[in-house]
Amino acid sequence: MNNYSDDSLALHTDLYQINMAKAYWEDNIHHKKAVFDLYFRKLPFGNGYAIFAGLERIIDYLQTFHFSESDLDYLKELGYKRDFIDYLRTVRFTGNVRAMKEGEVVFNNEPILQVEAPLIEAQLIETALLNIVNYQTLIATKASRIMQVAGDKPASEFGTRRAHEFDAALWGTRATFISGFSSTSNVRAGKRFGIPISGTHAHSYVQAYEDEYIAFHKYAKSHKNCVFLVDTYDTLKSGVPTAIKVAKELGDNINFEAIRLDSGDLAYLSKEARKLLDEAGFVDTKIIASNDLDEYTMMNLNAQGAKIDAWGIGTKVITAFDQPALGAVYKMVAMEDENGEMTDRIKLSSSPEKVTTPGLKKVYRIINKFTNKSEGDYIALNYEQPEKESKLHMFHPVHTYIGSFVTNFIAKDLHEDIFVDGILMYENPPLQEIQSYSKEQLNLLWEEYKRSLNPEEYPVDLSQACWDNKMKHIEEMKKYSFKK
Amino acid sequence: MNNYSDDSLALHTDLYQINMAKAYWEDNIHHKKAVFDLYFRKLPFGNGYAIFAGLERIIDYLQTFHFSESDLDYLKELGYKRDFIDYLRTVRFTGNVRAMKEGEVVFNNEPILQVEAPLIEAQLIETALLNIVNYQTLIATKASRIMQVAGDKPASEFGTRRAHEFDAALWGTRATFISGFSSTSNVRAGKRFGIPISGTHAHSYVQAYEDEYIAFHKYAKSHKNCVFLVDTYDTLKSGVPTAIKVAKELGDNINFEAIRLDSGDLAYLSKEARKLLDEAGFVDTKIIASNDLDEYTMMNLNAQGAKIDAWGIGTKVITAFDQPALGAVYKMVAMEDENGEMTDRIKLSSSPEKVTTPGLKKVYRIINKFTNKSEGDYIALNYEQPEKESKLHMFHPVHTYIGSFVTNFIAKDLHEDIFVDGILMYENPPLQEIQSYSKEQLNLLWEEYKRSLNPEEYPVDLSQACWDNKMKHIEEMKKYSFKK
Repeated sequence: MNNYSDDSLALHTDLYQINMAKAYWEDNIHHKKAVFDLYFRKLPFGNGYAIFAGLERIIDYLQTFHFSESDLDYLKELGYKRDFIDYLRTVRFTGNVRAMKEGEVVFNNEPILQVEAPLIEAQLIETALLNIVNYQTLIATKASRIMQVAGDKPASEFGTRRAHEFDAALWGTRATFISGFSSTSNVRAGKRFGIPISGTHAHSYVQAYEDEYIAFHKYAKSHKNCVFLVDTYDTLKSGVPTAIKVAKELGDNINFEAIRLDSGDLAYLSKEARKLLDEAGFVDTKIIASNDLDEYTMMNLNAQGAKIDAWGIGTKVITAFDQPALGAVYKMVAMEDENGEMTDRIKLSSSPEKVTTPGLKKVYRIINKFTNKSEGDYIALNYEQPEKESKLHMFHPVHTYIGSFVTNFIAKDLHEDIFVDGILMYENPPLQEIQSYSKEQLNLLWEEYKRSLNPEEYPVDLSQACWDNKMKHIEEMKKYSFKK
Repeated sequence: MNNYSDDSLALHTDLYQINMAKAYWEDNIHHKKAVFDLYFRKLPFGNGYAIFAGLERIIDYLQTFHFSESDLDYLKELGYKRDFIDYLRTVRFTGNVRAMKEGEVVFNNEPILQVEAPLIEAQLIETALLNIVNYQTLIATKASRIMQVAGDKPASEFGTRRAHEFDAALWGTRATFISGFSSTSNVRAGKRFGIPISGTHAHSYVQAYEDEYIAFHKYAKSHKNCVFLVDTYDTLKSGVPTAIKVAKELGDNINFEAIRLDSGDLAYLSKEARKLLDEAGFVDTKIIASNDLDEYTMMNLNAQGAKIDAWGIGTKVITAFDQPALGAVYKMVAMEDENGEMTDRIKLSSSPEKVTTPGLKKVYRIINKFTNKSEGDYIALNYEQPEKESKLHMFHPVHTYIGSFVTNFIAKDLHEDIFVDGILMYENPPLQEIQSYSKEQLNLLWEEYKRSLNPEEYPVDLSQACWDNKMKHIEEMKKYSFKK
């Protein structure tokens, strides 16, 4: 092991980015403007939408982007030459970023974020941007699915111990809060982001004492607000009766807020525990349930009439257990040519869904003025002004015969200017506002798009001009790709 | 959002740890010695073994453990009282840690790591320790499965963009290296851990030029060692022929090391590309394949005779895609009583596999002197000395009638002293040595335990004394738990 200090995130990238940077720089095209779209091709979990998260971390990353001296020493050790290293020392992010707001409802194949920057900068930041958006958007989306089932009952994120290392626990729980979770067990996330934190005691606390009765008494002596974990030995025969006994003895000296069930048959146990609590007069004492819960188990517990007032969700949300990766990509859609003109770029593929959509584009949400519901998203070339049209032709970008004309709409540009010429232009709202914004945006969607099983496909359409432009470029590139 | 600086990891814990700490401290039992076992109950991926990783990060974490002033300010804001906060300011890790070496082959239900420390310290570090072990061990195990299929062909870790945030990319790729991966694309991991790094160029590099021919020429001008990505437009009609053409033109000016296939039918494309390369005389040019690979797709590609010389593995290994969480737990097994004596503690459960094994224990690997293969692992109470016995009775801890007598064995204590009274006693070996150690330990296992599908169950047995002790405690605790 060497002794370089871990004092920068600039090398949190794939080696090929550095190798491409070197080649661009030696060919003196590194300064040419390039435009990249960041988007994903497929919605995760079979869900009908996703929730964008990650912008705050991206802003931090881009604002502080630079190669530290230890980064440069390491690159020198790898064999990169002094003049290239001297150049890298000067690199900062000087480009433009347009992006959707955090908490925005987003869909497949629409640019969530666009970078327009000197080629070398746009390339060097790719890996980190994808890393951030892929994880945080994945978790926000999973959390949103869970909140669709939780409804008005609060959900708390408890998954730090199962997260993929420290950063995931921290940024993941922030993403669950964006999608409507009400608290987290992670204290550092509370400190850093102002998320309400929650938690009381573990099994080991009960084990530290002779028995549950003494343990609960000791806990109540130290904490006026009591949530007792009741399954250390036996939930119904020991835990719940003991909690009730202690609460009766202490009367108004404590708030017997809740019991927590963490194992066993949560449907049965919650119903029985509810009876015991009610019979003892603790009708306001809540029942919190946890233990590998997700939207599927929660829906089943609800269907069985489980008496659960609040949910503790860990592993399944913080790891996005049923699909732990989102496949967002970052594709070049335009670049400055030899004459200084921006020209569109395309990437072909034998898989049609992997063919990119060239050009500088905007994404509009088309909102019906009467219903206040969204008719779909509309991707247009930068110069188009759909907000000024009275009638919009929206058609499926693959099955083009599927389409309709929309009138009486608002076309809302979903992108904000985040950076202009490397200067931060955007103030990310407080987290609570991001949560509210996300909830409002979800209200624009018909229920058919929001159900967790087999949702309707939300329209993400290209404008006629954007579609024509794409077809033109496919034709042009065939000379390279499909030649016989 | 508040303005606390993120200058410590002490709050990377669940709130209940802080609340228990407060209650222990107020009850003045926080200084009593407690012993916790860290272990998992079920092997991931249906695999027959796991590979332990995470010790290096744990050492860093425990050595620097303390509450920063901003941590304490935040806790004050939450309402904790000054005297408790003043106490927390003084807390450091002063206990003992015994743990297996990184790279060790480990199994379910055996303590990978043991903490013996003042109760409050042992409790405060729980969440972080689990977080670290769960993720890194999971990834090392997934990587080991992949290396069982890769065999002598090198595998490189390419998954940073799909990892669960930055820490996961960094520590995850380190875990893959422990299990035999030969390189990573993550430059920061190269800098920090000395892992060899690899990577050449992306599709965007080709797009940045007029066509593939110019792009490959430019790349070759900048990099003598060339790995060309050949699927930007059309692998067999454009990419491979263009790579060959450029390599022929440049002759000895470059090393035409490899082509990389990143989409399409890798079995077919690799065979056709191999033919084209061979016909052109580039018999030593390798074919690297990537695109959502894991042990299953690799085995299928091998079965179809794919001509792949090296593997690039991303998403599936860095997220442990098919099972993205390991459920390691941290359970109290003993605690100092009022008289200062260590007494065993147990946690019962209606799920028999969740009942803990009380007491201070050691884990031995029982190695047959003739075959040099492991007969199983043997968990004994601390005072036992199986290495001095000539004959060992090993029996299944659940189905106790399944057992055998072992003779002519070496009983290897798998734990090392890591911390003694808070002092670091152990020097973690260089990463390359950890990789070699892991490979050697895997050689102790019969092949039946190592196959990826339906492996034999490796014996992890309790000594008679350990088993008797557990049964005794279960009987004793029944008075609390199973009372009528």
